[in-house]
Order: sequence, then C-alpha cells, then structure tokens
Amino acid sequence: MKIYRVNMTEGKVSEEEVKEEYAALGGRGLTSQIIADEVDPNCNPIGEKNKLVIAPGLLSGTMAPSSGRLSVGTKSPLTEGIKESNAGGTAAQKLGKLQIKAIIIEGQPEEGQFYVLKVNKDGLALEDVSDDLMGQGNYEVMESIQGQLGEDVCVMSIGQAGEYKLQAASIAVSDPEGHPTRHCGRGGTGAVMGAKGIKAIVIDDDGAPGPYMDNRDEFIEAARDFTQSLLNHPVCGEGLPAYGTAVLINILNESGGLPTKNFRKGRFEGADKISGEEVADIIKERSGKNTHGCHPGCVMQCSQVYNDKDGDYLTAGFEYETIWGFGANAEVDDIDAIAQMDRICDDIGVDTIEMAVTIGVAMEAGVIEFGDPEGAIDLLKEIGKGTPLGRIIGNGAGFTGKAFGTDRVPVVKNQGIPAYDPRAVKGQGVTYATSTMGADHTAGYAVTSNILDIGGTVDPLSKEGQVDLSRDLQVATASVDSTGLCVFAAFAILDNDKALPQVVDMLNAQYGLELELGDVFDLGKSILKTERDFNKRAGFTNADDRLPKFFEEEAVPPHNVKFDITGEELDEVYGELD
Amino acid sequence: MKIYRVNMTEGKVSEEEVKEEYAALGGRGLTSQIIADEVDPNCNPIGEKNKLVIAPGLLSGTMAPSSGRLSVGTKSPLTEGIKESNAGGTAAQKLGKLQIKAIIIEGQPEEGQFYVLKVNKDGLALEDVSDDLMGQGNYEVMESIQGQLGEDVCVMSIGQAGEYKLQAASIAVSDPEGHPTRHCGRGGTGAVMGAKGIKAIVIDDDGAPGPYMDNRDEFIEAARDFTQSLLNHPVCGEGLPAYGTAVLINILNESGGLPTKNFRKGRFEGADKISGEEVADIIKERSGKNTHGCHPGCVMQCSQVYNDKDGDYLTAGFEYETIWGFGANAEVDDIDAIAQMDRICDDIGVDTIEMAVTIGVAMEAGVIEFGDPEGAIDLLKEIGKGTPLGRIIGNGAGFTGKAFGTDRVPVVKNQGIPAYDPRAVKGQGVTYATSTMGADHTAGYAVTSNILDIGGTVDPLSKEGQVDLSRDLQVATASVDSTGLCVFAAFAILDNDKALPQVVDMLNAQYGLELELGDVFDLGKSILKTERDFNKRAGFTNADDRLPKFFEEEAVPPHNVKFDITGEELDEVYGELD
Repeated sequence: MKIYRVNMTEGKVSEEEVKEEYAALGGRGLTSQIIADEVDPNCNPIGEKNKLVIAPGLLSGTMAPSSGRLSVGTKSPLTEGIKESNAGGTAAQKLGKLQIKAIIIEGQPEEGQFYVLKVNKDGLALEDVSDDLMGQGNYEVMESIQGQLGEDVCVMSIGQAGEYKLQAASIAVSDPEGHPTRHCGRGGTGAVMGAKGIKAIVIDDDGAPGPYMDNRDEFIEAARDFTQSLLNHPVCGEGLPAYGTAVLINILNESGGLPTKNFRKGRFEGADKISGEEVADIIKERSGKNTHGCHPGCVMQCSQVYNDKDGDYLTAGFEYETIWGFGANAEVDDIDAIAQMDRICDDIGVDTIEMAVTIGVAMEAGVIEFGDPEGAIDLLKEIGKGTPLGRIIGNGAGFTGKAFGTDRVPVVKNQGIPAYDPRAVKGQGVTYATSTMGADHTAGYAVTSNILDIGGTVDPLSKEGQVDLSRDLQVATASVDSTGLCVFAAFAILDNDKALPQVVDMLNAQYGLELELGDVFDLGKSILKTERDFNKRAGFTNADDRLPKFFEEEAVPPHNVKFDITGEELDEVYGELD
Repeated sequence: MKIYRVNMTEGKVSEEEVKEEYAALGGRGLTSQIIADEVDPNCNPIGEKNKLVIAPGLLSGTMAPSSGRLSVGTKSPLTEGIKESNAGGTAAQKLGKLQIKAIIIEGQPEEGQFYVLKVNKDGLALEDVSDDLMGQGNYEVMESIQGQLGEDVCVMSIGQAGEYKLQAASIAVSDPEGHPTRHCGRGGTGAVMGAKGIKAIVIDDDGAPGPYMDNRDEFIEAARDFTQSLLNHPVCGEGLPAYGTAVLINILNESGGLPTKNFRKGRFEGADKISGEEVADIIKERSGKNTHGCHPGCVMQCSQVYNDKDGDYLTAGFEYETIWGFGANAEVDDIDAIAQMDRICDDIGVDTIEMAVTIGVAMEAGVIEFGDPEGAIDLLKEIGKGTPLGRIIGNGAGFTGKAFGTDRVPVVKNQGIPAYDPRAVKGQGVTYATSTMGADHTAGYAVTSNILDIGGTVDPLSKEGQVDLSRDLQVATASVDSTGLCVFAAFAILDNDKALPQVVDMLNAQYGLELELGDVFDLGKSILKTERDFNKRAGFTNADDRLPKFFEEEAVPPHNVKFDITGEELDEVYGELD
C-alpha cells in the first residue's frame, strides 16, 4: 500500500512508503494522525500550510459489508480545529482497490489556478482544469467528467462554494449513479480543497490490484458472518432499508426532541407531511427508489432516490437531518421544496446540516420569515452566485448570526447543531458539546440508547448516564470511522456481542494483524487523544466544550426540559482521556 | 460618588453605593473589574447577559490637564474577550462633574425596541427613542438631540452599524463642537449598545456638583505642576499641537514601518501627499483648525478640524491611524478622499482602524482594487445601508477575509492590526500579540522607545528588549487609562521623573488617598491580571497571543525584516503576571 503526496505549490506528486506507525491505521485514525503530525494547529485553514488528507477506511474496497466510507481530514475552516468528515459514495472502495492508503494534498498554487487530480492504477497526475468546469456546480462537473472518462469513474468535486472557500463548503463524492449526493459535508473541507486549487479528483480503479489482503479465506468467512449480523439487526436489516433515515422524523417528533423553529420547540406540527413514511409513499408513487445504497456493497441501503412531481430524478441521499433542518427547524412542511434545497446544496457543494441551521438563524434574524420555503431556496441559490449575501449564508450559522446581529445561534465550536435537541436527547447534547469535531451527531450517536433502545436504554430527559454514554460512543465511533464501516454498523455491534469480534477478525485476516477486542477501544481512545491534543494546541479549552447558553436557560416543550449537565460534568467526558 | 445600574430588560434605573473595593478605581480599572465581576466570560456579547460599563477616569472633570478620557468596558463582540475602549469627547468630564463613577447597562429589551438614556444632576432616565432618530447616522443624531436639548449636552450615540450590532460598531462621543468625531472605536462596543437597545445617551452637567474633591488646594498645586510637565515635553507641548498625530506618517515612512498595501511594504510612495505636514498646510489654507482638543482642558490639542475644498467643515479628529489605513495600507494618496472616509465612519459609527484594515483585506481579496478611493468610499457607505455587503465589511477584517476567502488577514484576536508594522516596530508587534485587547497600538505604545526615543531607545528592528518594553508599557498604560489622562501624557511621564509623582499627588489630593509611586504599577498589573483572567475563562490561551503567520514568514521591505520574536518569548510578557 502507498501514500501519495500532492504538492500544489510545486505542482508535483510523489509516492511514499507507509510509515510503520501508520500501517494499522485507516480512515479517521489515519487522517487525524497525519493532520496532527504535519499541520501547524495555528495555521490558517485556507492558507498554504493546511493540508487535506483523503483516506479510505481499513476495510474499504473489500467485500466487508457497508465498508465504503471515506475520511477526509484537515484543519477545519469552520471550527478552526481538527476535522474528519466522512462520506459514502464510491471513492473509498476504489482507493482501497488501488491500495492507496492516503492522499495528502499540501501547499497552494497561484491564486485562481485550479486543477483536476487524476488517480488511477498508474498513480496520480495533476491536470489543468478545463475552463468550462470552473464556476459550475457538482452535477455539471460530474456529468462532464463522466461524459469524458466514463460512468464508472468516481468524481470528488467542489461546487461554487468550495471555489469561494466558504466555511460550509463540502466535497461531493459521486454515488453509484454518478450523482453528487454524497458529501464530506461538515466543517468546510470543500473550502480547503478550493484553497488547494483542486476542482475535482477523478478516481479510476480500472485494472486496480484489488484491496490488500493477507488471508482471503479467513476474511471471507468473517465478512459473511458480519453481513449476517447486520442483516439480523432490526434497524440495520429492516428499518433502514425500508424507510431510510427519515424514519426518525416521527420518532423524534414523538419523543419531543425534533428541534423546531430554530430550536424553540421539540415538536413540529407539520411533522407528518415530512415524515419518512410520507417520503417513502411519495417515492413509491413517483417511481423513485426507497432502497438505495450510498456505496456498492452496503447491505443497509438507507439511501433513496427522490423524483419530482413529473417523475424525473431530483435528488438522492435525502437524509433525516436534511429534512429536519429545512423542514421542522425552518417550520417548512413542503417536502418537495425541502428536496429541492437538498439538491441545491449538493450542487453548490455546501453541507445541508450547516445550511439548515443557517436558514434557521437567517429566519431568526428576520432575513426571511419562518415557514417560507421560497425564501430559503432563494437564499441557498445566492451561495452559488457568490453574492455578498451568498457568502454570508455559505459561511454557516455562526457567521450568519454575526452578520445579522442575532444571538440565538445553535452552534458548538462554530458548527451548527444537528437534528436532535440537546435538551430532550441529552446524550446527544453531551456529544455536541464535547466532540473534537464541533457539534456533530455522528461523533457519538447517543440517539441509540436515548431513543432507539439500541445498546441499552438511557432516559433521554435525565442527565443520568449521559456522560458515560457519550464517551463510550465517541470512543467506539472513532474506531468505526477508521474501518470504513458505516456508523450504523455500530447498531449491530452494540446489540450483538458477536459482531465486534467479526470486525476484528476481518481486520486481522486482511492485514495479518493480531488485534484483540480491547485494541479497538484503545484505538478509539488514541484517536480522540490525538484530535483533542491538536485542538488544544490550536487554542481550544474546556470553555469550548459547551452548548450555547440558551439551552441551559430556555426549557424546550413539550417536556419543558433544559440542558442541565454542568460544565464540570461535561469535562468528565475527556477527563479520563486527557 | 455613585454607580447607576440600568436594566434594559425591566426598563429600570437604580442607584448604588460604590463598593469599597471600587473606591480607588476609575476608567479602565473600574470597567474591567466590573465586567470581570459581573459578566459570564462565555456569554454571547450581543446577548442579554453581556453588560456595557461606562466610566470616566479618576481625574475626569477636574482641572487636571488632558484628563477627559472615557472608558467603556464590555465583552467584545469582535474579540470575544474583555474590552476597554477609550475615547475623548466631553462625556468623561461631565460624568466626573456629576460625580458618577460608572453606569452599568445590563439586560436586553424586546428586539427592535430602542431608548435614549438621559443623565443629569437628578439621576438617570430612559425614554423611548423618537422614530426620526432610528436609522440615522451620528451626525444627524447629535444635531437633532442638541437642537432639542442645547448645544452643551454631551451625546454618546450609535450610528446604523450599532443598530445592526456589527462587530466593528463604535460608540460616538460628541466633541467640544458637538460633532461625533470621538469614538470608543475598537472592539464593537457600539454593537453592545445596540443590543442593549440604546440609540443615544445624553449627558447634561448643568447644575452638577462638580468633581469629588478632598483637598482642593493640594490638587490645584499638583495639577499646575503636571500641566507644566506636559507643556515642557517637546512632543506633548510642541509636536502634537502643531501637526497632530498625522506627523507620524513621515516618521513611520522614514523608519520603514508604515504598513502599505495590506502590510506588504513598510514604505508608501504617496506618503508625502498624506503626511501630517501636508494635512496641516491644507487645513491652514482652508481655514480649518490645526490645534484642537478632543476635550476641554487638553493642553496637547492634537486634534484638528479639516475642511473640504470649499472651506466647509468635513471632519475632525483625523488621526494618524485613520490616514495610514485608508491611505498607505490601501495605496490611496488622495487625502480628501481619506478625510471623507473618516467622516463616513464617524457618521455610520464604525471604528476607522478596523475599517481601514478591512478595506485592505477587501482589496486583497479583489473586491475592489488597491488604490481605489471611490471603491473604498462605496464599500463604507454600504455599511450604513445594511446590505449584506455592508454587514460583511462592518463586521471587520477577520470576517471580511472569511467572506471573500483570503488568508492574508492582519488581525490578532480577530481585531485589525493598526498603523505600525510589527516587523519593523517590533515592540508594537509584542503589544499586538499579547495585549488583552487584541491588536491595539495604545495598549503598550512601544513606538515611544522604538521610534520616538521617548523613555529611552530600543532598536525597532531588533528583538532585543521588546518584550520588557511592551510589558512595562502595558502595565503603565492600564494605570494611565484608569486616571482619565490621555495616553500621550505618558510621554511626559516616561521622560520626566517628576511627572508621575505629580499624577500621584493629584489622585491623593482628590480622593484623600495615600498612594505611593509603586501603587501605580501595582494597579496596572492588577488590571492586566483581571483582564487576562477574564480572557482565560472565556477560553483564550497563549495560542491567541500570536501574530498571523505571514509576519513570521514574509520579510517587509525596505529593511526586509521578519517578526522573529518566538511564541515562548511572547509568553514572557505575561509569564510574570500570570
């Protein structure tokens, strides 16, 4: 396996042996380690000294089920801390098959110079971007590149937002149909790719050697067993394939934890119009797909393809968090308008969660009214035009709050708080406050025990047990994010004692390792320590591990609960790790 | 003496006795202590929990020369740390004569509600603002209020920028002619006043008891002696009255420390067209005033009144830093255009230094070209209109850099770096990096020993001695800022051993104290510790005490020097105090 280094100042690509200490790392474990080793924590994220590291998970490219997740690491323009942004799509598996452990992009070309980075079995090459791609959205970029190079290549690209280096800019990763519906969304990775002068990365695995594999037979056995574990789990094997993640709209609404009107309420009157069940009906009616994988080989298939009223493709990967944000949080109950917003964000290349929180803040500030889908669509379109208003919106919720002078801004470490009210799903609140990533629901998805009764049950309204729950999940997630497995695979791991050993067996078979169960947790802890140390060196303190004050002061209906976990208690999450 | 508390949530004013521990504090010493005691360092600066504290200096209102400086303290929207912003104008003396030690404004009214706070011998009262003042600039606001209440009242007001709660919004303080040319400029104090719903504060000292005075005879004697000390100092008594602060243009240009083209060079080809000498000639020609006080009783008279080509009043308080910023840093050599920019900033209510640095960043990002005065004027006018572009510019240099995706942004703690290149005037560099206030030239004005040979000589290009120089000046300045004396009074204190004892004699006579010389330095240290502790609790670390990387990496011509004082060395500034 190899690591490639792309120096944009010199326009040169070089190949490196994998250092011994990186050998057993992949995905987030590897991106965070390289960022911590090579990037000055006090550099400007869109300056020459930042780096962008792209790494498939350890299992990506193999037949391990649902293992095609990609990690992109950098110093985040949005949080100014370390960032691993994780996406599906077809990139990770192709990189795994090419036996590329990581691509490190560093330096900076002349202002305004843009390139396409081509990756194939012969290595990497930089080419000048063709003029017609510049200023284009991701749909056009991917279509154009696939038109030239074939439908089977994977394209990672930035839309206009990345070209403008906006803090909410994402990197789009093409899905199995070649659409830009999968994104390294959070934290502004697209701004760093834009600052590096890369409009698109094209990954072609034609003639690839296939994934690194030490013991194929043992691997296949373990992979088969783990596939069964996923399929046997009621959420992984049934709930997600049937309704996708949007099934959570009704569940969260019922629990009183669906943030509504910029986090003023925990229930949305229009929830039934935007629910997963409703979406599934519409998709069926319009001949879309209710069961769709974000990458080949996924057995959970929680993605879907959403057609417009005429039955034409509109968007895919239409997730719960997106529907929540452009829906309940903005008091919009028009699901087609929400789907359009999802499409616009995918095209311009901005994080739908950050944009949803931002639209809520813009509504709060009176830029547009709550419940105004046309206003929201117009605001999102401004981003692509590069107008001053678009640059405000595209820089996220914290930025927009400052531009329009409102103090009700739900962010942690300047990153928008997603889809689960931290007062009514308190384990999520702990994760939002303390994650090294800023507010990030996937960093320690306590919805499991708080709401879904997966991995045990912890009362979501009580503070009891939430710190331990969040910490354990943050540790486990850091490990899972290193394997290339989807975070939802953790559902099976949490409920079935046999599942984690199956993952360990796969890793040992693939890499000739002798990992034990405990090593998985040690890896997770070690990743978190590395990330937290980076953030400390960047100037973060425990004061950054806090929710905005209004969560402590305002009770959220219907349960009328406040966030009552104290700063000292939050500090216990990392107290043991620091 | 009394402290007034104005609660904007309840619309109530109350009077409090002065706590014993506040008795010997005034100005910055008092505002910083109250903010540290009463404000949660992690509150949102434009939220309900922040406070705005207004305090005259200890000597303000007396016949002590040049003692009419006002301190406004708050948690800064710009830096997110503690802020004392210091202004001339007539407010401090009137407050001193009313024996008001401080006004604490807290809470928050309903969104969109604005008031006028009236201060006179009978106490304080809140009145609804009249509709015709809202949306108006400071010139119109002051003219309107003085038209109603008489020319002698002092008005402190916010322009449109403060109403919009922009991070560079200032609080204007009327000068002796009733013009809004004196500002608590730095750090966004105007945004906090806007968030508190106060459009204007009117201070009427008619019938005031006069300043608190324990021993008038002793005070008069000490004040006379100190007046002589100021008049005898060549800069305080001759240089400043003759040319104002703009005399520094030629001096800094000569020294190679005049930041030009967004800090790319240390000399500006057009310097002679914007020099103090040139300004003085123009003022004379157009029958302006070359010798003008920012407050009555100032003997240094470094302000001036600048008329337009027709001989009509255009602006006053046209300082070196403003001329530098809209001039050299933007490569603009049209002094009338620069004067117009000064006027626009005073009217809209934004800090000229922050705006100058912001215009440089906007030019860097290509929003307008370097050397384009009309473009700069148009950008500034946008702020008053509240357009998205205006909201970007009005939020300062860091914000503008992020909006337009440039990484060459000269800020420390998000506050724009003023008028003295930190590489060529290294003592200033130390002050910029380490001050509790963010980049602030007045916080430790090392230009004294670096450039003016006041208080000794320290080679500006060498790193030797700069840390000690900056620390000593930061300590002394914190004390001076508590007295109400102008920071330029320090010139006399630094060069004449008799001057500081005269200040101590004044304080002892006025308040019946028994201060000794050493107490003055202890006070300064104590203030800095209080401020630094607030910032630490707000999440600041030593990583925040650094200049942007490009000052370490790019040599500035003509001397081709970099900023070579290491982080460890910078940490020695506070190492002794922490």
